[in-house]
Amino acid sequence: VKAEIVTIGRELLDGGRVDTNTSHLGVRLAALGAEVTRATTVPDDPAAIEEVLLRALGDADVVITTGGLGPTSDDRTKHVVARVLGRSLVLDDDTLERIAAHFEELGRPMPEINVSQAMIPEGARAIENTVGTAPGLLMEQDGTLFFVLPGVPAEMKRMVESYVVPFLEGRGLKRLTEERILRTTGVPESSIAEEIEELTRRLARTEIAYTASATGVDVRVICRGDTPAEARRTADNAAERIGEKLGDAVYATGEESIEQVVGYLLEMGKKTVAVAESCTGGRLGWRLTRIPGSSEYFVGGVIAYSDDLKKRLLGVRVKTLRDHGAVSEEAALEMAEGVRGKAQSDYGVAITGIAGPGGGDDEKPVGLIFVAVSWDRGERVERFRFSGGRDTVRERAAQAALDMLRRALL
Amino acid sequence: VKAEIVTIGRELLDGGRVDTNTSHLGVRLAALGAEVTRATTVPDDPAAIEEVLLRALGDADVVITTGGLGPTSDDRTKHVVARVLGRSLVLDDDTLERIAAHFEELGRPMPEINVSQAMIPEGARAIENTVGTAPGLLMEQDGTLFFVLPGVPAEMKRMVESYVVPFLEGRGLKRLTEERILRTTGVPESSIAEEIEELTRRLARTEIAYTASATGVDVRVICRGDTPAEARRTADNAAERIGEKLGDAVYATGEESIEQVVGYLLEMGKKTVAVAESCTGGRLGWRLTRIPGSSEYFVGGVIAYSDDLKKRLLGVRVKTLRDHGAVSEEAALEMAEGVRGKAQSDYGVAITGIAGPGGGDDEKPVGLIFVAVSWDRGERVERFRFSGGRDTVRERAAQAALDMLRRALL
Repeated sequence: VKAEIVTIGRELLDGGRVDTNTSHLGVRLAALGAEVTRATTVPDDPAAIEEVLLRALGDADVVITTGGLGPTSDDRTKHVVARVLGRSLVLDDDTLERIAAHFEELGRPMPEINVSQAMIPEGARAIENTVGTAPGLLMEQDGTLFFVLPGVPAEMKRMVESYVVPFLEGRGLKRLTEERILRTTGVPESSIAEEIEELTRRLARTEIAYTASATGVDVRVICRGDTPAEARRTADNAAERIGEKLGDAVYATGEESIEQVVGYLLEMGKKTVAVAESCTGGRLGWRLTRIPGSSEYFVGGVIAYSDDLKKRLLGVRVKTLRDHGAVSEEAALEMAEGVRGKAQSDYGVAITGIAGPGGGDDEKPVGLIFVAVSWDRGERVERFRFSGGRDTVRERAAQAALDMLRRALL
Repeated sequence: VKAEIVTIGRELLDGGRVDTNTSHLGVRLAALGAEVTRATTVPDDPAAIEEVLLRALGDADVVITTGGLGPTSDDRTKHVVARVLGRSLVLDDDTLERIAAHFEELGRPMPEINVSQAMIPEGARAIENTVGTAPGLLMEQDGTLFFVLPGVPAEMKRMVESYVVPFLEGRGLKRLTEERILRTTGVPESSIAEEIEELTRRLARTEIAYTASATGVDVRVICRGDTPAEARRTADNAAERIGEKLGDAVYATGEESIEQVVGYLLEMGKKTVAVAESCTGGRLGWRLTRIPGSSEYFVGGVIAYSDDLKKRLLGVRVKTLRDHGAVSEEAALEMAEGVRGKAQSDYGVAITGIAGPGGGDDEKPVGLIFVAVSWDRGERVERFRFSGGRDTVRERAAQAALDMLRRALL
């Protein structure tokens, strides 16, 4: 099965926005065994859209467009699609009702301009948009499946999962490749590669790919089989053996985030946690609360950005700040203990450091971070030196704190 | 000047990597007044590359390819380019010397495979690669300029800055398009479009494009002129008039973020701020501290996720929680006042709400958010109802809080 992706929008061509839709669709289509043979980006210009759609119709079995479905005048995709397929636009009552309901729920009158979003090409199926107002579309013509999706990544992704993938599976597209992801943090890519190199050479029909980011390395284990079941078995076995080799550097198998894993460990142990953040300014709290239901184990904490708040809200001693400074092992430990007492939680986690770009010196350079974890039967503190810009250093600090909490909970 | 971008690599089509080269080139070309009319991604497949290059040669004045220049066998761009242009590959002595020097510097013998990197199409100019080994190429044929650049973003960017942009400027490319960005928040795209529709129809040589995200709408005003100065004047005038029409919904003109604007206002007024966050869990604090030097005006705050911490750390009254609940105007106001007192700051900003997916009911549905701002001479509280998933609701809440703080500071 040959697939083609067409992304639409001037902002993708003049640098206003990076196209991440192609990559997301590519992953999903590859998993179904479809080959993406071309991806094209064109501006919101009817002639340009028409040309690329006509060519795609001739070459591909599946065509997916994203973008150009909004209510404003620079959104023209739907009209061009209708013209290319020789169909007229008709009002879709269900879609109009859904858009009206959406505005009613928001307590706002529906602007006239949004009615046009309920017009769809004759014979098309409207794909419900549970996030925004523009519906997606599915048409079939001359053996080609034609999906028209919104450009906003969140809306597009929702439709891909809830409609496009199940529909293509219904058409017999099968998974002859299986992927497992082993997520690690705190170990550089080259060390991980060295560690598992010999083992992976001995695993049949298995490929390894690394996706490194500022906060860790995901090891992707990609396995093939002659049947879906065989691919699954091969992948399960390969992932298990590689996981054993990497030990507790692996915090999750699959798409789980480290905050999910930490949340799971806290819930299992019926423990609570509070945070004391200096340079991260709330990042650790935000990440812990990304998990629905985190109120079961996260009570809150203190953003102690100024030294004054470190003293007054966390009880860090004046002597500690004077002798060691706010960026020190000693201050981190007192912050962790302090927030644990204040919040009456089982665990306290603290971060203090120098995020940059200014504020560093020879003794305490930019990127220096201390993380401390305190609980009723122990405490730990670690010193890190992270590279990268201000937000990268801060994100790495929050990640290190989550990992230290995870290890303390294990 | 019409430009076309061709990115090459299977990993861009199966989700292995997100293409950021197109966006980077788009910014640079737009600044030179060149219009990117199409961007195409194809796999490392000679037939696919050939087809797209032939088409680009016919349509565009400038063609830039990235990717497919490495020494391994899946990199075929150069051979296809030579064939499409009817040129043979010849050894470029300078390039060979540079590659040999590169390996000598690394203290490693040069693999035989790298010699092929010094082969370039006859008549081409080699563009030095100061980061990696594969040189870039420039060819001219039938009035079209043909740049062949490496796919690794760091290598590509270096060549664009050091060679491609200066070369195009030398060919007389000038900024005949000027863009201004008006950043807004709190008003839906359709309302903004309605508001300025009539005005923009009357503005000559001006186009409007909208970039909507969960936190606001950027109105991009794109203007043309016969000279760079005229384009600038047209853009300044158009942006000013549209800005007047949109009023204080516009928080910035240009690339500035709302946290930068808020930081600037606080610094100018020599004021400080503290935050009290419930459902956002630290997002507001994180965003305020993204700005280097924010310690001048941000003192910190409290993440009061549990009701207990709302009472104990912020002084929210038991009666308020009992009569109105933690998600209420009253609680938001007491949180804002409470953190202002605790932190001894000039401003206190509080967020409380229901981020979902659970926890909502008919009276207080998911997406209901209260934001309060308190200062020595006043206080404000607003009720919002945001749609979207948990993190979207929370990001919108933080954005609304930044906007309310901005308006209070104005």
